[in-house]
Amino acid sequence: MSFKDKLNQRIIQVNSCACVGLDTVYSKIPQSLKKDSQSKVDIIFEFNQAVIDQTHDLVCAYKPNLAFYEALGEAGWTALKQTVDYIHSLDENILTIADAKRADIGHTNQAYAEAIFDYLGFDALTVHPYLGSKALQPLLSRKDKGIIVLCRTSNPGAAEFQDLKIDFDNSSIPLYQYLAHQVKDHWNQHDNCALVVGATYPKELVEVRDIVKDMPLLIPGVGSQGGDVKKTVLAGQDDKGKGMIINSSRSIIFAGDDGDFAQAARFKTTELKQAINQHRRF
Amino acid sequence: MSFKDKLNQRIIQVNSCACVGLDTVYSKIPQSLKKDSQSKVDIIFEFNQAVIDQTHDLVCAYKPNLAFYEALGEAGWTALKQTVDYIHSLDENILTIADAKRADIGHTNQAYAEAIFDYLGFDALTVHPYLGSKALQPLLSRKDKGIIVLCRTSNPGAAEFQDLKIDFDNSSIPLYQYLAHQVKDHWNQHDNCALVVGATYPKELVEVRDIVKDMPLLIPGVGSQGGDVKKTVLAGQDDKGKGMIINSSRSIIFAGDDGDFAQAARFKTTELKQAINQHRRF
Repeated sequence: MSFKDKLNQRIIQVNSCACVGLDTVYSKIPQSLKKDSQSKVDIIFEFNQAVIDQTHDLVCAYKPNLAFYEALGEAGWTALKQTVDYIHSLDENILTIADAKRADIGHTNQAYAEAIFDYLGFDALTVHPYLGSKALQPLLSRKDKGIIVLCRTSNPGAAEFQDLKIDFDNSSIPLYQYLAHQVKDHWNQHDNCALVVGATYPKELVEVRDIVKDMPLLIPGVGSQGGDVKKTVLAGQDDKGKGMIINSSRSIIFAGDDGDFAQAARFKTTELKQAINQHRRF
Repeated sequence: MSFKDKLNQRIIQVNSCACVGLDTVYSKIPQSLKKDSQSKVDIIFEFNQAVIDQTHDLVCAYKPNLAFYEALGEAGWTALKQTVDYIHSLDENILTIADAKRADIGHTNQAYAEAIFDYLGFDALTVHPYLGSKALQPLLSRKDKGIIVLCRTSNPGAAEFQDLKIDFDNSSIPLYQYLAHQVKDHWNQHDNCALVVGATYPKELVEVRDIVKDMPLLIPGVGSQGGDVKKTVLAGQDDKGKGMIINSSRSIIFAGDDGDFAQAARFKTTELKQAINQHRRF
């Protein structure tokens, strides 16, 4: 089954386009979990496990950003692998997205495929477009996985390159739209591509949805980054009210205080799921 | 001291612009090192150590590509950290470049800075430009480190985005040249930026050198990828015959047979160093 079909099936299963970003910053893990007798690996995993236990029936996907695990070196990698395994042990239909923003020459992308898909066991990976699709073939050829290409990112300053004007089809369009055309028309041979478009740019989200039709969109930037849920859903959903993964990280996993972080994460995820569903086409 | 000054000082110290790419693919490590009693970490580190022992007096830098370590999970990370520590223990002036091609939003780039510079201890990091300089500030603000931005990469298909035409200064130039202008004029406040330009594109290398003046260039693609050393040096050197890091990976570290891989690596590195020096301005 293609990544798109897996995603839309999961969205139906739990009636949710919400995604929890497991961006587990070690210094923000509640003190009560940091027992002297426990290793860093155990502490990170215990935190993630508690969040997952409280939220897995509410989400279409989890999206750990690898930077926060890598900041702890091998301990982070061990905890990350345990986390992905744990999610799949609960329900194989929950999608796991490695927000790793990789991309290199072909020979090296083969090693990234091994790292992210085969070793860590993720269902999907975010990638940078700059080296082009030929270099990304070892990733794009993985029919069973999702390849999620950065298109219009959620950060301030994203326009520096992404809005540069490109000649296309007798008109002049921003680079991010040119990229959306390239991915839709040429990269997506196995129906396994998706695009990242930030919730902080709803106007751009409309443009991208229009270009890519029912291709899935990964939409970060609601929550701490300030994206508006209503605008995001109205702009980001496909014509059946699906095809989007709306991610929130910090404002879910670090919403609570020491004792109630997992319950607070459940509350915030429920809130996000419902806020999204209010504006979905059914 | 800036990354540029550190590099040029090291180039003078060993009279070499050669860089060995420690792209240690586990399956290619000689069988003789794979003793049953040894862990993967020990085997990878022993291989790297033997290569480094035979080459460190010949190189300005080592450049491990993280993909090949990540493909082995936490064992790879442990071996990578040991490798960086070992290089610095031999000579602090040898530059260590994390070829990790990272880049994310600002908050996340801070975690990558911790992972690559603080935890692993690298002197420099390769980054993707797509999110723009504002997002990269947590990396660009590290005055003591090198931030090496992908400009014109060595792979087939690099033109897909990198050669797109951009309006600049009343003319139309390829994106990779626009990027070179941006980095030179706006990103390089701390004199810590460098660019990646593949040896497989000597014409483009001439253009980039012309734009960035004495900014360092990391030039992969000689050796297995087929780049020509003479053309590369004539195009890539700054006006004093320095400012370039010419990398070869597979064709050095996997040049030999089982018993003599380290000696073969020394032979190939010497050959590369000399071939480069033949065409440097002195």
